Amino acid sequence: MARGPIDMNMLSSATSSSADGLWTDLQGIDGQPCALVVEKGLLAWIGSTHAVPEQYASSKRHDGRGALVTPGLVDCHTHLVYGGQRANEFAMRLAGASYEEIARAGGGIVSSVRATREASEDELFNSASARLQQLLSEGVCAIEIKSGYGLSLEHERKQLRVARRLATAHNVTVRTTFLGAHALPPEYAGRSQAYIDLVCNEMMPALHDEGLVDAVDVFCESIAFSLAETEQVFLAAQALGIPVKLHAEQLSDMGGAALAARFGALSCDHIEHLSQDGIDAMAAAGTVAVLLPGAYYTLRDTHLPPIEALRAAGVPMAVSTDHNPGTSPALSLLLMANMACTLFRLTVPEAIAGITTHAARALGLQQTHGELAPGRPANFVLWNLKDAAEMAYWFGQKPVRCVVRHGRIEEGGV
Amino acid sequence: MARGPIDMNMLSSATSSSADGLWTDLQGIDGQPCALVVEKGLLAWIGSTHAVPEQYASSKRHDGRGALVTPGLVDCHTHLVYGGQRANEFAMRLAGASYEEIARAGGGIVSSVRATREASEDELFNSASARLQQLLSEGVCAIEIKSGYGLSLEHERKQLRVARRLATAHNVTVRTTFLGAHALPPEYAGRSQAYIDLVCNEMMPALHDEGLVDAVDVFCESIAFSLAETEQVFLAAQALGIPVKLHAEQLSDMGGAALAARFGALSCDHIEHLSQDGIDAMAAAGTVAVLLPGAYYTLRDTHLPPIEALRAAGVPMAVSTDHNPGTSPALSLLLMANMACTLFRLTVPEAIAGITTHAARALGLQQTHGELAPGRPANFVLWNLKDAAEMAYWFGQKPVRCVVRHGRIEEGGV
Ligand SMILES: [Zn+2]
Ligand SMILES: [Zn+2]
Repeated sequence: MARGPIDMNMLSSATSSSADGLWTDLQGIDGQPCALVVEKGLLAWIGSTHAVPEQYASSKRHDGRGALVTPGLVDCHTHLVYGGQRANEFAMRLAGASYEEIARAGGGIVSSVRATREASEDELFNSASARLQQLLSEGVCAIEIKSGYGLSLEHERKQLRVARRLATAHNVTVRTTFLGAHALPPEYAGRSQAYIDLVCNEMMPALHDEGLVDAVDVFCESIAFSLAETEQVFLAAQALGIPVKLHAEQLSDMGGAALAARFGALSCDHIEHLSQDGIDAMAAAGTVAVLLPGAYYTLRDTHLPPIEALRAAGVPMAVSTDHNPGTSPALSLLLMANMACTLFRLTVPEAIAGITTHAARALGLQQTHGELAPGRPANFVLWNLKDAAEMAYWFGQKPVRCVVRHGRIEEGGV
Repeated sequence: MARGPIDMNMLSSATSSSADGLWTDLQGIDGQPCALVVEKGLLAWIGSTHAVPEQYASSKRHDGRGALVTPGLVDCHTHLVYGGQRANEFAMRLAGASYEEIARAGGGIVSSVRATREASEDELFNSASARLQQLLSEGVCAIEIKSGYGLSLEHERKQLRVARRLATAHNVTVRTTFLGAHALPPEYAGRSQAYIDLVCNEMMPALHDEGLVDAVDVFCESIAFSLAETEQVFLAAQALGIPVKLHAEQLSDMGGAALAARFGALSCDHIEHLSQDGIDAMAAAGTVAVLLPGAYYTLRDTHLPPIEALRAAGVPMAVSTDHNPGTSPALSLLLMANMACTLFRLTVPEAIAGITTHAARALGLQQTHGELAPGRPANFVLWNLKDAAEMAYWFGQKPVRCVVRHGRIEEGGV
């Protein structure tokens, strides 16, 4: 809990070792025996155990002892960096407190904004590191981290800088998303347009200049920002050449998905109330549908996202934790795969693609993450499982044997 | 996966160390600083950090560094020992297979009975050890393990013997429950009464003689055994002086809870369809209500157990994994606490009592487990958490810093 940034860096380099060499006696998701070769941190070859090219015969050997191997997991929608936590609010609500009482006790998103603003960059780094470690130890090799609890240039910058530092300290791919349009900050109450102007004209260009913004996101909802405000943010992002994504149709059908698709959005996320028009627009634009069963579960939502229609339209579906302190304090991507099956009725192959291939695509990382193929950075996981279906079947376990991130053995070993 | 029983024993003794000494700088569930003393494996003293008796001042020190401390967790309802697993059935169902197709592919409880009968005692021990380790690493210090996949004297004995071996190998308290009346074995199809006679007249006395039965349980349900059959099993248990518990009112109100209360049952479990009469009978008998949100979640049940009425009647509520390969492949008791809050609206203190104090009572272990008090075996957990509410708030994490079981530091350390 009290580990500083320097300790984290040391920890990372002290305990990891190179994954270079020949990994034998593995089992693919298809149940077939396979082997793979890592050279200089890249996947150099993958294929049948019996077809290892001569040139790798004398490479250093890593004996997989029959372990299931999958691509590194990708968590494509998180709000991982924030001050404080809201366990007390969770307890108060269950004890019968009204929303007014919780607000008076300092609860709600405003409390996370206040705690994030009050926290130093190191404090944010340390608390997010502990949460990130939970996800990494389960096989996550790439993660998206949004801003959106700072809601001013200074504090959004602080969140995004922490996200970049987490990437270096933990040797993990991090994609940063600027979510200045997450909520209206208290000092802009009643002046939504003025705040959106600030987001578009000052915050976004400055943070983009500093190299802190891989994508731009908006919370488009009746309780957040309108369709017109969303379009203004997207236009600003487009002008800077930044890809967009959207918190869309979670509580109502705002038409956000169709707008996002028009801007070639990487993904539309939540989408419980997505219309057929939205689905068609996403399919045409190649936009990924990001399903967030942890929030659905925590909010005791009963309005299911339109899985059948997404499937029929061929929209790729990703699954993510939506980790955040209010509506999804989830710290397991495998649990989200189980919830996607149990609550949303995804098939097991869909759930596995949802936390690998399609999640990578939702981050624009389809060339480097989410699949095992030669030439990519070596990001893969060996599991204490026999059958790929077990990844979604058991829940609450941590079945990782070994995680290779960016060519290094970072968790466990063989 | 391939670790044999001897390895497990060695692992246990090789890695654990005595917890004897003064544990300082801890924080109680009430948020107050505290300290505790372990002497010869027993809790000798617990109190304020500032009131440590002179006599312990020179004891060996374990610096808690502010960690939250709780009693060891108790998982009071599991079917942990079985052959095979049913991930393939889980996947088939999601892919749209009918119950007939799954049955034809060898699915359902019958498949677990077959796999359990085919497995050797060592195979059952090894697969259950891996699952048990997931629960232990999260702070479980006592666990109930039921038979019920053998359904013959030979194979029920095998399951219960494995449960006893797990206790020794992992230095954990195990309570065995004979659940011969779990399902009708295929060879008794259409001859339910003959099977119940076998359970009562041959299996139960023999297994009791061998010291393998701490309690007796029945699955009383329209798809399992009738109220009259349940009573016959309870009478046999009563004659042998064995306490009883019951799988009651999960799918319908069979009146099982009132019957069980009449026999002074330790617990009635599931109870989604429990009536007010059943609640009153349980309250009068001091029978614990065991809530199983993992099965409720996996089955997508919508009929909530009568939490308000149980609370009003003062019936103690426990929360457990119900770990089993069909309806609850859950391997996290903390996740069950979160689900009890989120799905069943237990308060946070109720959920914590549900996986400690009340769970111990459901196993008749209220004198030794579930609370921190002088004279008890030292079973406690140090958490990487500040606030007890965080135990139920986050989900999918493993926040354990250190687990002391039976006076030995078995997981992590300080
Ligand atoms: Zn979100
Ligand atoms: Zn059960």
